[in-house]
Amino acid sequence: MKILLDCVPCFARQALDAVMEAVEDPAQREPILRRLLHQIADGDWSGSPPAMAQRLHRSIRQELNNPDPYRAIKDRMNAIALELVPAMRQRIDTHPDPREAAVRVAIGGNLLDVGAKTQIAAEELPAHLETIWSHPLRGDLEGLFLAAERAHSILFLADNAGEIYFDRLLIERLPTEKITVFMRGSPVLNDATIVDAESAGLPELAPVFDNGSDAPGTILDDCSADFQAWFERADLIIAKGQGNYETLSEVNKNIYFLFTVKCQLVADRVGEPVGSLVVKAGRLGGEDSQ
Amino acid sequence: MKILLDCVPCFARQALDAVMEAVEDPAQREPILRRLLHQIADGDWSGSPPAMAQRLHRSIRQELNNPDPYRAIKDRMNAIALELVPAMRQRIDTHPDPREAAVRVAIGGNLLDVGAKTQIAAEELPAHLETIWSHPLRGDLEGLFLAAERAHSILFLADNAGEIYFDRLLIERLPTEKITVFMRGSPVLNDATIVDAESAGLPELAPVFDNGSDAPGTILDDCSADFQAWFERADLIIAKGQGNYETLSEVNKNIYFLFTVKCQLVADRVGEPVGSLVVKAGRLGGEDSQ
Repeated sequence: MKILLDCVPCFARQALDAVMEAVEDPAQREPILRRLLHQIADGDWSGSPPAMAQRLHRSIRQELNNPDPYRAIKDRMNAIALELVPAMRQRIDTHPDPREAAVRVAIGGNLLDVGAKTQIAAEELPAHLETIWSHPLRGDLEGLFLAAERAHSILFLADNAGEIYFDRLLIERLPTEKITVFMRGSPVLNDATIVDAESAGLPELAPVFDNGSDAPGTILDDCSADFQAWFERADLIIAKGQGNYETLSEVNKNIYFLFTVKCQLVADRVGEPVGSLVVKAGRLGGEDSQ
Repeated sequence: MKILLDCVPCFARQALDAVMEAVEDPAQREPILRRLLHQIADGDWSGSPPAMAQRLHRSIRQELNNPDPYRAIKDRMNAIALELVPAMRQRIDTHPDPREAAVRVAIGGNLLDVGAKTQIAAEELPAHLETIWSHPLRGDLEGLFLAAERAHSILFLADNAGEIYFDRLLIERLPTEKITVFMRGSPVLNDATIVDAESAGLPELAPVFDNGSDAPGTILDDCSADFQAWFERADLIIAKGQGNYETLSEVNKNIYFLFTVKCQLVADRVGEPVGSLVVKAGRLGGEDSQ
């Protein structure tokens, strides 16, 4: 998915968010934001939106001389998720369709993001998370589980910290013996890396590796040769989060994208409104591959 | 009201809107948007938000070598408003409180903006405009009309094209003999200038002048000496639109601001949610002046 002019104000907003969240000293924020705006103005607008975000966050880490300015936020997201896991697991187990419930939880894990950023009181978050049960869930749920059944090798591409705890609940419902989980190669934004996967206990279920890239998405050319080989060999990719959709939606591969629609441009593209929980088959996924 | 870091993504959005609306050739849009972003990044962030918008729109007019790139949009807004005036006048006349109705219409005139921009079908706009009757109207309506009764000289500071037709319906309910209307000094955005006031027939009701400035608000230092003298002498200012609020809210003067709250920062400041129709007494207006 290519950057459109409409993405540009959103980059400015992302730069502001990053500055407000990652830069502790208020006096540092304005000069850094000005430099990030220049960077957006001079940037390469021919790639995908996460490619721009990757460059912005590299700059922020350099400016702050801090390799992981979101570590505290990620820890908070993980802690919130850890507390919620037992209730979520119970909701899944007692749901009329536990597989649908597990997908809702995994996609809805995205909302922990908001909780962590605004520091929603712990007691309010469950009410906030209730929306994952009422938001429309669109797409080919059956196709996803059928594809997982048929596949020999499945790559699960993770998204954010916190959310990774909820991903685990979905992975438990999939044929775990076929699954390899890939995390971002190094910290970017609040995206999950190996340490988050370990904190969620994922290695107990499946091998966990990193993709070698610091993009908040999966830019294949930017990933390690190892990851590219895994990606090539796998016959099913399950990709979490809008960033993975933005970077992989045009790849000819059997991919299921699981994400919350967060912007109008993506909404237009997938044909579902902002806020929808989506299970979207990629170019060679679902009916296209029949 | 000073620019906050939170305003910066909104400037980028305004730059995008301007480029999409005012630049007809798609190939010109990206380079102009990039230059506008640099301008925002290098800009003076110590003034009010309309001061930044003023500079951005000067750049756009220069880039396009077009002194009034929004002329077509303003004409469309005026044409839409002209058609709606009879129905609006009737709604006011038959309303249980015609003065409240006239204020709702004048503030709600802001919505023509959206109609003109998205080119809402003419038949849909009336439904869209119905919201002006259900949106909360906050503030001191009684105080406004009492102040108008007591005043000797009233300045009415207009806002957008189209909306000016609806302003006329409010002005008709005020002591017109005391009113002088001031328009932007030259074209900026879709703001109304003298030609729009003339098209709405305002000079039949009250003297109409221009303020000498091309800011989408009222930056006193940037206005003509004539305007400043009028402003100084007037004992009541009625200022339409959020831009006038952003530029005049800290001025020690008996001002009533009539506007739709359009952003969260202004909402926080006035204590009313985004979308509210507000009649807000300025520093020396309303109860503060008792």
